[in-house]
Amino acid sequence: MKIEFLGTGAGLPTKQRNVSSLALDLTAEIGSVWLFDCGEGTQHQILRTTIKPRRIDKIFITHLHGDHINGLVGLLSSRSFQNGESLVQIYGPSGIKTYVNCHLSLTGTKLAYPIQFIEVEDQSYYETKHFTITVKELEHGLASFGYRISEKAKPGQLQVDKLLAQGIKPGPIYQQIKENEQTQLPDGRLLTRADFLGAAKPGKEICVLGDTRHPHKFAGFVSDCDLLIHEATFSHLDVAHAHQFYHSTATEVALLAKQANVKQLILTHISARYQGDQINKLADEAQAIFANTLIAEDLLQVDLTNH
Amino acid sequence: MKIEFLGTGAGLPTKQRNVSSLALDLTAEIGSVWLFDCGEGTQHQILRTTIKPRRIDKIFITHLHGDHINGLVGLLSSRSFQNGESLVQIYGPSGIKTYVNCHLSLTGTKLAYPIQFIEVEDQSYYETKHFTITVKELEHGLASFGYRISEKAKPGQLQVDKLLAQGIKPGPIYQQIKENEQTQLPDGRLLTRADFLGAAKPGKEICVLGDTRHPHKFAGFVSDCDLLIHEATFSHLDVAHAHQFYHSTATEVALLAKQANVKQLILTHISARYQGDQINKLADEAQAIFANTLIAEDLLQVDLTNH
Ligand SMILES: [Zn+2]
Ligand SMILES: [Zn+2]
Repeated sequence: MKIEFLGTGAGLPTKQRNVSSLALDLTAEIGSVWLFDCGEGTQHQILRTTIKPRRIDKIFITHLHGDHINGLVGLLSSRSFQNGESLVQIYGPSGIKTYVNCHLSLTGTKLAYPIQFIEVEDQSYYETKHFTITVKELEHGLASFGYRISEKAKPGQLQVDKLLAQGIKPGPIYQQIKENEQTQLPDGRLLTRADFLGAAKPGKEICVLGDTRHPHKFAGFVSDCDLLIHEATFSHLDVAHAHQFYHSTATEVALLAKQANVKQLILTHISARYQGDQINKLADEAQAIFANTLIAEDLLQVDLTNH
Repeated sequence: MKIEFLGTGAGLPTKQRNVSSLALDLTAEIGSVWLFDCGEGTQHQILRTTIKPRRIDKIFITHLHGDHINGLVGLLSSRSFQNGESLVQIYGPSGIKTYVNCHLSLTGTKLAYPIQFIEVEDQSYYETKHFTITVKELEHGLASFGYRISEKAKPGQLQVDKLLAQGIKPGPIYQQIKENEQTQLPDGRLLTRADFLGAAKPGKEICVLGDTRHPHKFAGFVSDCDLLIHEATFSHLDVAHAHQFYHSTATEVALLAKQANVKQLILTHISARYQGDQINKLADEAQAIFANTLIAEDLLQVDLTNH
């Protein structure tokens, strides 16, 4: 489970930061890559990574501002050219389907794969084999959402010593015991799995929030997650400006992280007004409140597997 | 009068070539930049040039394929953020207005300046103070157009020696003589401008064609121009493929340049299948027929002023 930041700027692309997108690379876990937002030039950034567009099978759009979606149709087209043949599910606010379809039809684009649109609402909930997805509506002047991605707990290891102590020798029977709640042995004994498994390993939980102001309102939604990825468009020195334009400051988000007891915070969607040493100051501002904070940069990778 | 290539690839962006766009930089002549096509990432390419987005006041779209327009709305938005306040005229096929407006309205984008859409047809003709613009429909499976931009002739220089010979001394009267067909001197003499002007200097003419097959059909349209910019997606080794997908080969376009007696040819929209030495081979293929041929590359600048 890896995060790769594809664009960490706000509003406008600069030479340092592209507009919003990040990849949750689940290739090792389930062979998939999930994308969050897709600003213009996201497919160009992907060329600089090892991500294969055909592996992208879910795209979560936080909101319909151009800096978060203007690269979506280009990416979908390129995925088609590059042998993408499997379903893509696009989660996003109401309007995302019209946006994509209007675009595809006017440009005469035919994709080699189907798209399923899932228009989300506050508290929408989805479940896959290995993950649950929870949605929270934020406060950005137009519909903007946060996504909480929770990996399901992994069952504990089979405790071989206990099985051997019962005279059960290694073989296909071990797999059966692991996969079924109860297993009857050839000699008639009935084994209960729970007696032979170590503790389940909790899954990772990450929260990716779209643009918003008043982040303190979302403490319940992000509570106790392993990684919170949140916009911090502005320093708290510009708090009035941030509020006016429905954005958050580094201070506000650090307070959220502390209050919600998250394990790690990464700030992104950084305004182009902060460059060089001002980025360090933004980090200082947040770290003074919540130490385990990082300011994202384009192509930053964060490996969550062994966190 | 300068040309700057912003994207010279076909279909998909690669690390070497972005998708289609080029700028006709008329900053020195009329303070404007005119853009031809606007594939995804065009605004990112502009960051690597000295072009100021607010100076872009005409955008010519050759056709509505995504690799030619997916960067348009992003560019328009950024121009607004970057203090662009003056009118932008967008020339393009029928549908361009719906495309842009659908995009702007679904993303809630408000621009700080007005847009005028001019949906072109075969043989459309427009005139500005310094230029004429002629349009030709091409052959690309969907409506695709070529634009011929003709700079109007510049009046000749005032021949000072002739004026002095008539006893007319330098002063504001010189400007009057230059600006009016006839000028009456204080002493009653009537001067005719033509008698005192050198030869008019013909303007430059450039043709920018969109994607097409059968380029020989457009010899009349591009005849005798100073610079022809034309797609050559494929080598003639792949001519069947080119025809099937409504594209041209380097050989076909070189034949067009020769037949139409153009002064210089630049090939662009090069398929990603040609890399490194294959690009040299593509150039050889065209130059064997029409020597003054160049293969464009991203950020190539061509100065036409002193051609
Ligand atoms: Zn944004
Ligand atoms: Zn094209």
